[in-house]
Amino acid sequence: MQLNAAQKLIQDHLLSGEMKPGEEIGLKIDQTLTQDATGTMVMLELEAMGIDKVKTEASAQYVDHNLIQEDFRNADDHLFLRSAAQKFGIYYSRPGNGVSHPVHMQQLARPGKTLLGSDSHTCANGCMGMLAMGAGGIDVTMAMAGEPYYVKMPRVMGIELTGKLPDWVSAKDVILEMLRRHGVKGGVGKILEYYGPGVKELSAMDRHVIANMGAELGATATVFPSDKEIKHFLKTQGREDEWIELKADDGADYDEHEEIDLSALEPLIAKPSSPGNVVPVTEVSGEDIYQSYIGSSANPGYRDFAIASEIVKGKQIANGTSLDINPTSRQLLEQLVENGHIANLLAAGARMHQAGCNGCIGMGQAPATGKNSLRTTPRNFPGRSGTREDSVFLCSPETAAASVLTGVITDPRTLDMSYPKIKEPTTFSTKGMLEVPPKDNSQIDLEKGPNITTIPDFDPIEDNFDVPILLKMNDNISTDEILAGGSRVLPYRSNIQKISTFAFEIIDDDYYEMAMKQRDDGGHVVVAGFNYGQGSSREHAALAPRYLGLKVVLVKDFARIHLQNLINFGILPLTFVNEEDYDLVRQEDVLEFRQIHQTIQNQHTFDIKLKGTERTIAVQHDLTKRHLEILLAGGIINWIKEKQ
Amino acid sequence: MQLNAAQKLIQDHLLSGEMKPGEEIGLKIDQTLTQDATGTMVMLELEAMGIDKVKTEASAQYVDHNLIQEDFRNADDHLFLRSAAQKFGIYYSRPGNGVSHPVHMQQLARPGKTLLGSDSHTCANGCMGMLAMGAGGIDVTMAMAGEPYYVKMPRVMGIELTGKLPDWVSAKDVILEMLRRHGVKGGVGKILEYYGPGVKELSAMDRHVIANMGAELGATATVFPSDKEIKHFLKTQGREDEWIELKADDGADYDEHEEIDLSALEPLIAKPSSPGNVVPVTEVSGEDIYQSYIGSSANPGYRDFAIASEIVKGKQIANGTSLDINPTSRQLLEQLVENGHIANLLAAGARMHQAGCNGCIGMGQAPATGKNSLRTTPRNFPGRSGTREDSVFLCSPETAAASVLTGVITDPRTLDMSYPKIKEPTTFSTKGMLEVPPKDNSQIDLEKGPNITTIPDFDPIEDNFDVPILLKMNDNISTDEILAGGSRVLPYRSNIQKISTFAFEIIDDDYYEMAMKQRDDGGHVVVAGFNYGQGSSREHAALAPRYLGLKVVLVKDFARIHLQNLINFGILPLTFVNEEDYDLVRQEDVLEFRQIHQTIQNQHTFDIKLKGTERTIAVQHDLTKRHLEILLAGGIINWIKEKQ
Repeated sequence: MQLNAAQKLIQDHLLSGEMKPGEEIGLKIDQTLTQDATGTMVMLELEAMGIDKVKTEASAQYVDHNLIQEDFRNADDHLFLRSAAQKFGIYYSRPGNGVSHPVHMQQLARPGKTLLGSDSHTCANGCMGMLAMGAGGIDVTMAMAGEPYYVKMPRVMGIELTGKLPDWVSAKDVILEMLRRHGVKGGVGKILEYYGPGVKELSAMDRHVIANMGAELGATATVFPSDKEIKHFLKTQGREDEWIELKADDGADYDEHEEIDLSALEPLIAKPSSPGNVVPVTEVSGEDIYQSYIGSSANPGYRDFAIASEIVKGKQIANGTSLDINPTSRQLLEQLVENGHIANLLAAGARMHQAGCNGCIGMGQAPATGKNSLRTTPRNFPGRSGTREDSVFLCSPETAAASVLTGVITDPRTLDMSYPKIKEPTTFSTKGMLEVPPKDNSQIDLEKGPNITTIPDFDPIEDNFDVPILLKMNDNISTDEILAGGSRVLPYRSNIQKISTFAFEIIDDDYYEMAMKQRDDGGHVVVAGFNYGQGSSREHAALAPRYLGLKVVLVKDFARIHLQNLINFGILPLTFVNEEDYDLVRQEDVLEFRQIHQTIQNQHTFDIKLKGTERTIAVQHDLTKRHLEILLAGGIINWIKEKQ
Repeated sequence: MQLNAAQKLIQDHLLSGEMKPGEEIGLKIDQTLTQDATGTMVMLELEAMGIDKVKTEASAQYVDHNLIQEDFRNADDHLFLRSAAQKFGIYYSRPGNGVSHPVHMQQLARPGKTLLGSDSHTCANGCMGMLAMGAGGIDVTMAMAGEPYYVKMPRVMGIELTGKLPDWVSAKDVILEMLRRHGVKGGVGKILEYYGPGVKELSAMDRHVIANMGAELGATATVFPSDKEIKHFLKTQGREDEWIELKADDGADYDEHEEIDLSALEPLIAKPSSPGNVVPVTEVSGEDIYQSYIGSSANPGYRDFAIASEIVKGKQIANGTSLDINPTSRQLLEQLVENGHIANLLAAGARMHQAGCNGCIGMGQAPATGKNSLRTTPRNFPGRSGTREDSVFLCSPETAAASVLTGVITDPRTLDMSYPKIKEPTTFSTKGMLEVPPKDNSQIDLEKGPNITTIPDFDPIEDNFDVPILLKMNDNISTDEILAGGSRVLPYRSNIQKISTFAFEIIDDDYYEMAMKQRDDGGHVVVAGFNYGQGSSREHAALAPRYLGLKVVLVKDFARIHLQNLINFGILPLTFVNEEDYDLVRQEDVLEFRQIHQTIQNQHTFDIKLKGTERTIAVQHDLTKRHLEILLAGGIINWIKEKQ
């Protein structure tokens, strides 16, 4: 059977299941990537599991998200991550080295391999002929421990690229065109595979731009072939010997078909406040801007900065505007300095920031109230910039640079200049980028500042227990309501004891006190309506209530990722068989669970009794054999410890 | 009579008083400098005073302190400051242009002139043969409005410099030597004037280093002569025609004498947590470090970065350390890029930050818990770095760079290399540095984001009024207790209505509610013991309680700056004649003030009655005629409005 490139990658790594769209498959993971925002919890999980060294071919810990260091917490986290990287056998990329995705591409990415990362833009490395996927922290922890990654087999959309990009149009416009056509849900359950004669017109970093924002279509992954261009890219990194070819078999087919004629594209822009809100730049040109922001993993390439430099060279940015330059890797920054591009940008009035994610994830550079900000970043969700009532547009570096010169949104084709030609460097310094972990880790201790604790031990759920309903909630409770994010709460992400004090506080600020009172007295249950746990994938929304004694969640139905997190942390997720039974239970009612171990293993549906009454409620679960094992072990950390 | 250089500057600007140490003198102010942390209030004061254009020869508004922009507030403040600069006829230096002191030196400083700035390191420009002084915000506002600056005539300490600095010893070691000898109070009430044959061995920027940290000795100002080196510096800036010579008359004397033989100095370091805690580097060498931080107005020069670059060139910083580079002006940064120094620093592993104050004032780059940070900044007060339990050392760029290579505190003389020679650039680009205000300001409106309000109008104190004592406090109440600083409160510095909700909350969290209830019913009084209002000079500690109806403060005695702030905002400051009367009054007692206008103008001592009793309390004040005018006008804003 002829396979496309995505299917080849999957077949090469298939440990369980069948390659039928929608079926659960288990994949061998070759490489992992973690960043500092998600990595501290991953490292604490490795510690809790008692892992000695990771079992992947290469795992890397990047420090790129939280670089600001307003107090000791971030600096302490960085040192903790470094010590954990040394202990567990992980490459460490220190703050200032750059954003995980381009640095990983430069230093570690290998065609034909799988990469799992605890960052939603991990898909960017699909540009290298890899199967690269973003996942939750504990999924990555498990992959580091040598476990398969389970995912539903995606459909593969083949996108044939033809032609060549016109002047002033670049890779960002290609992915914006995909978003214009398919919207932010157009890639859900799919791998986006690019092929065809247009691919060779795109550099490896151009492909990174396109693969990166596959996340904005909701795709599981993006796959580009590994061709001569990838070989050339690896050569510039001194890693030519790591190249292998990867391409679809002749005659291979795709589950869905799309075609983009590159030569027909024009400069595009995503208006506030969704990456799917795409229009031609001409449609919004003339609007005042406050800021142009160049950088992020969605435009990380040398050319992305060099083209901006050539556009502003010898000119001055408009008064009252801010041109924010966010280099994406130390390697590229050194080259941009050497070739005079940083000098051009500075002389034009740019503000230079350290290499990292920075304002892309709201860490600085927030725009002024009600003012337009043009960004080459991947996302413009409301408030992501740090300014609640923001107005962020996503566009190419060409459009951002042209607009900051004029002070209004400007189609770069209207500038009175010819399109600058950028010569990419052919060699790079690769020194000082990643710290290699020592072979012998026996002398290495985890370095924990006062804000970093250890994940508490959790006992498996008892066989018989009575638990009161501490909260009865409505539909659509989000993980933000279960455990808020933001600068007030997130600094405690490495401190379960402390972060749990914020659990459910938006719903009921007595919850913490009630739960703590009940904790040593058998724990508690919470009840809710439809779509429980929607929103952010944060694991703390399961871990913190678990620490406070949450045993069972009983709802009308669950949001997918939170359901997985509940199982992973040993909380029994149940739904009502009859939705109207939701109305029968009240806050403070006590539920009686009897012989629950045997029951959930043998039955998907069973009854529980309301203590002190004759009433029973029919409940159900949809747990697989693997899920049940994890749950009855007290969560995935205990489960993996038992397996070792 | 022969005059020293400091006396010449004073005589040239003397509007009132006599040049006798300790006597109040009024000085004409030629130039002012404001930064964004203090500038928003200055601009709101200019607005409240109804000023059309500033009356100084040159005033400049710098944006250097709060560059991080985590939400809309900082960005809004920057746009507000820009609009105010345009309206009031002030140069505007946008974020990314650099730290006020070096940028002012490059663009506007002129020998023979006076400079008043709402930043304690304004004294740095004394390096240019100016009388440059830091002051409170409203003092600078008044100077911008054309009013004299009043200060007690300082004693002048003459410091004769002889010899020439050895290799590996630089200007920072000179001022550290002064701190070693005289401590952090050694300059109080004094001007430090440097003279002698050693001066010519120091570049203009080296002198900036020394003048800047005069603030750490508590000095009113530092004065260097304006000589050929200053002429040369102005030439590199294209401003040679602005040079005049300034030096002490032959045979002039000083009130105090000091001498430093430059050739006898060695690398020095100020240990945690005071700039006065100075020892030779050799005394602490070998201690582990986490961070070396290069930058700030205390080491702003081209050579300060270039020497660090030459030291780390071709090498790598120690694993686990952070080398933070904070350029001090766009002009120098461009030159450092052009000459390869930034490339050297990056290749060695440095983190590059935008030009500004940054970590020097705790805006990012905080060290990890309990780890040593070596900084070329001027201050290492506990917690100033952002980390409460920090361990910050102050040293030269040579010592900081040497130490980050080894990972331990290192005397740079022990490096196995010869002392690099730095060639200073002789010309600079001066484009794009300061926005010049328009001649016609009639079309310019102040641009106020939602967090920026207007200073409320305040009526003068009534002639007869009864006021309850809302708070009775102990000794040593600081302005931090009156109105806290920090990231929770400071974002509201341009919003008196909002910031006043935090007033006295540390003392009594019912204060705001009690005061608001009493506000339209005649206001209130607070009572305290000795040293009331010690600590930070922040004006909000007077302005916010005033907004809430505070009329009178009755204490055992006042801290100097807060007393001035009370007068400036129209609050009557009284002290007990008999300290034991403090024990006679209780919270909620009501004090009767009768014919107070006439009384305070005619008597320094008078009685007030406790309402509902026969008891009286003897009180006193020490207000000058000018103070009384201001107070009876309802504060300095009303006073200047009446004068116009």
